[in-house]
Amino acid sequence: MFTSGTRQLLAKSNKLCLKSGSYLKTFSAKFTTCDLYALVEPTEPKVVTENSPGPNSLKIQAEISNFQDIRPMIFSTGIPFSSSFISSLPFCENSFSQISSIPLGYNHHAILDVCSSPEMVLSLANRPSLTLLPPTNWADKLQNIHMKVAPKGLTNVFNTVDGSSANDLAFKAAFIAYKEMRGLPDELSEQELSTSMDNASPGSPDLSILSFRNGFHGRTMSTLSATRTKPIHKVGIPAFKWPAVDFPQLRYPLEKFEKENAAEEKRCLDQVEHIIKTSKTPIAGLIVEPIPSEGGDLHASNQFFQKLRKITKDNGVVMIVDEVQTGVGATGKFWAHEYWELDTPPEIVTFSKKMQAAGFYHQAQLRPKIPMRQFNTWMGDPSRTLIAGAIISEIESQSLVEKTKATGDYLMSHLKPISIRYNKLVQNVRGKGTLVAFDCPTPEYRDMFVSLMRSEGVLIYACGNRSVRFRPALIFSKSHVNVFLPRFESVLNKMYKQLWS
Amino acid sequence: MFTSGTRQLLAKSNKLCLKSGSYLKTFSAKFTTCDLYALVEPTEPKVVTENSPGPNSLKIQAEISNFQDIRPMIFSTGIPFSSSFISSLPFCENSFSQISSIPLGYNHHAILDVCSSPEMVLSLANRPSLTLLPPTNWADKLQNIHMKVAPKGLTNVFNTVDGSSANDLAFKAAFIAYKEMRGLPDELSEQELSTSMDNASPGSPDLSILSFRNGFHGRTMSTLSATRTKPIHKVGIPAFKWPAVDFPQLRYPLEKFEKENAAEEKRCLDQVEHIIKTSKTPIAGLIVEPIPSEGGDLHASNQFFQKLRKITKDNGVVMIVDEVQTGVGATGKFWAHEYWELDTPPEIVTFSKKMQAAGFYHQAQLRPKIPMRQFNTWMGDPSRTLIAGAIISEIESQSLVEKTKATGDYLMSHLKPISIRYNKLVQNVRGKGTLVAFDCPTPEYRDMFVSLMRSEGVLIYACGNRSVRFRPALIFSKSHVNVFLPRFESVLNKMYKQLWS
Repeated sequence: MFTSGTRQLLAKSNKLCLKSGSYLKTFSAKFTTCDLYALVEPTEPKVVTENSPGPNSLKIQAEISNFQDIRPMIFSTGIPFSSSFISSLPFCENSFSQISSIPLGYNHHAILDVCSSPEMVLSLANRPSLTLLPPTNWADKLQNIHMKVAPKGLTNVFNTVDGSSANDLAFKAAFIAYKEMRGLPDELSEQELSTSMDNASPGSPDLSILSFRNGFHGRTMSTLSATRTKPIHKVGIPAFKWPAVDFPQLRYPLEKFEKENAAEEKRCLDQVEHIIKTSKTPIAGLIVEPIPSEGGDLHASNQFFQKLRKITKDNGVVMIVDEVQTGVGATGKFWAHEYWELDTPPEIVTFSKKMQAAGFYHQAQLRPKIPMRQFNTWMGDPSRTLIAGAIISEIESQSLVEKTKATGDYLMSHLKPISIRYNKLVQNVRGKGTLVAFDCPTPEYRDMFVSLMRSEGVLIYACGNRSVRFRPALIFSKSHVNVFLPRFESVLNKMYKQLWS
Repeated sequence: MFTSGTRQLLAKSNKLCLKSGSYLKTFSAKFTTCDLYALVEPTEPKVVTENSPGPNSLKIQAEISNFQDIRPMIFSTGIPFSSSFISSLPFCENSFSQISSIPLGYNHHAILDVCSSPEMVLSLANRPSLTLLPPTNWADKLQNIHMKVAPKGLTNVFNTVDGSSANDLAFKAAFIAYKEMRGLPDELSEQELSTSMDNASPGSPDLSILSFRNGFHGRTMSTLSATRTKPIHKVGIPAFKWPAVDFPQLRYPLEKFEKENAAEEKRCLDQVEHIIKTSKTPIAGLIVEPIPSEGGDLHASNQFFQKLRKITKDNGVVMIVDEVQTGVGATGKFWAHEYWELDTPPEIVTFSKKMQAAGFYHQAQLRPKIPMRQFNTWMGDPSRTLIAGAIISEIESQSLVEKTKATGDYLMSHLKPISIRYNKLVQNVRGKGTLVAFDCPTPEYRDMFVSLMRSEGVLIYACGNRSVRFRPALIFSKSHVNVFLPRFESVLNKMYKQLWS
């Protein structure tokens, strides 16, 4: 449908996605109208249906429903396969980014370039076992992609396939390291070897992972045992009888509640120390998100995490920092835990989502003494490593971490006065970078807010009991904030009128 | 280095990989010499180093070792990123296929075509949450790819990211279905909801998955609890205290030991029934591989599995058939469990490896009554679904299941007389399709055999205690068997000379 002139115009007008235009050059011949349209960012959200999901989405969902549970679905999207494309989606979805997992927006030229490279095609078509028969240039990929952004002090990386498996296998790493961490003889007895086959002690030891209430770490059975968000995530599924402690519930504004918040953090740290020292099943590892996200975007001070590191270190507990949602720049640091300025690094940092590749970084001492104790057929996916490489390069060359910090500050500078003007609805505004959230007074008001924003063309998502979270891509800029704000205020006005006028 | 004429010649001479040549047409300009070379299948294995791994592999492994444990590695390969390419690898590795996970050999034209399509590029670059914002054509992909090969009676599919997560989430499906399977009121009480947050009963119920000794189902913590292969897989990792039963250990030749084998199968089935009826923690699900593979390529009769289905059905136990290694054609049926000709299908069949996509098929009744009980951010990967589509089309259009059956029969027709001639080394030859195995008398002889085969340029792999397994791609043909056989006999002769002359 588009003439070649229109194509060029569209490519030119696209500010975010097609700086180099190389992708269009390679593929334009194969693109349909809709595919091409998907490459262009709209200037603002445009809602084309009366309700959400609209009639097309409902039709598509009904078809999907024959084979798959559709009840969690928001709506069907033109992404990544365009055919009936909602023009404003890439924009409005920017604030949510496929549950925080799209790093550079849709159809980014750098990612399209690597995805259409011969290296990618070969890598996809010939998926290797990275443990057994790694590609000849795997060392190069490890060094120049994964290790280029390795958290300080972590010299090894273990690739997995998603965030759940990253945490699941990180737990295993903590259990395998347990004896050495506690200064015990690091040997396997005949009795351990034989009893392990019956899932019995001592071979299958009674060891725990300690996690925080409101923490979310995945939905495989072990990570679910450490997840403490909502009953619907956990009920009916057998769990390891692992303990949990409270994550600090800070009061806002922080300046006003300094003393109360310090006491709250101390209370939680005392719990951690008490459980580590008294737990009948010893604590091999502790897992913590820098900002428990699914659990409501909770924050704690750097001192809290510094003390947490000290307690775990002093007690031989592996500290696992779960950066699946906070990692890769969104907080204004590449890793959120950089804010803490720890004396000694955590033993393990897990990643997924925005990295598009998944796994965990770890200290060299956590490599098991005996081989094959951690092993999988695929253990990651070199195709996803290539994409991670493009993401990391673009983040560096475009200073996207610094820009995200600036955008987050700009967003906060507007949200704070709004939360004073609309204090019945917008409370406890908090954030680092663009990982910003606020609370509504009740879950019902929160759900109403999320739904009204959707009719304004902005996909923003709930977390915790009554919170709302921003999860934009790293290309979310001040201009996007400026498109967001009037829609935000419009919804707040509507709700005020309906509820309090 | 290659002229355009040479390119054409190479493309023409390549029998397996480049029938259409379309991939070369699209990408030849971007290929380096080595990449192009990788597209051509050698006619026979050629060992270019004195030892395996050779000096190049050792150098590469030393580099990888800075960041990743290299001890499980066999050698580094030119696949998928060619630079220092071992020319014979695609051939010799055909017998192992990246732990049974390469369906059509390396650089297959149909897979290269889909991997270089605009649809793939968009799908890779814009990875969606398949639960929340599925692509508009997702119903079409489900129907025409995943459901096209759905096991009989299974109308739903749940996508995951690998075999471990397929089994892990299948366990969860079994636990969620438990009440309904047992005819209990399928409701969640307030007490269940609240106790689940503390990993305590009744919210986190004491339910079990029953598995077979010698079964392998993955290495996440829950699937490891059901895995019963070797202590090195399990030791030191806390496990759910789930029970295990014996998998029949048949004696060969089957004709000779008909009575003994029937008794052995009955003994195992009695164990299953006894444990289901008496287990203190009720059995919600039973998981079984059609041919326990990592555990030693064990076989059982169709009657055994028919009775197993009857016992599970009569007792309200979800039957999970783990086809991660046996699925997608290698046994001479698309699904190995088709051989059983069950009256009622199993509730769940899991898949990964050769499908290149992963997940589980399930009966419609296993869709949870309440949404969001099973959920993940990605829940699969539509890029891998596209590859699965190419694999399934090629399998159908080239009758690869039937050909694999014929190749397997041909291989067996040679292995059986060899096992008589070399009966001190080649014992209990067994197989379905090309999923063929035999036993050596001891683990030491088996390891020696595997190592000598490697010096002949054939990568063949151990399983169980003293077994050797073939795991070729579906394009493994009689001509490949003919290249394999003299190398096989040469190694057997060498071992006989060394051990018994």
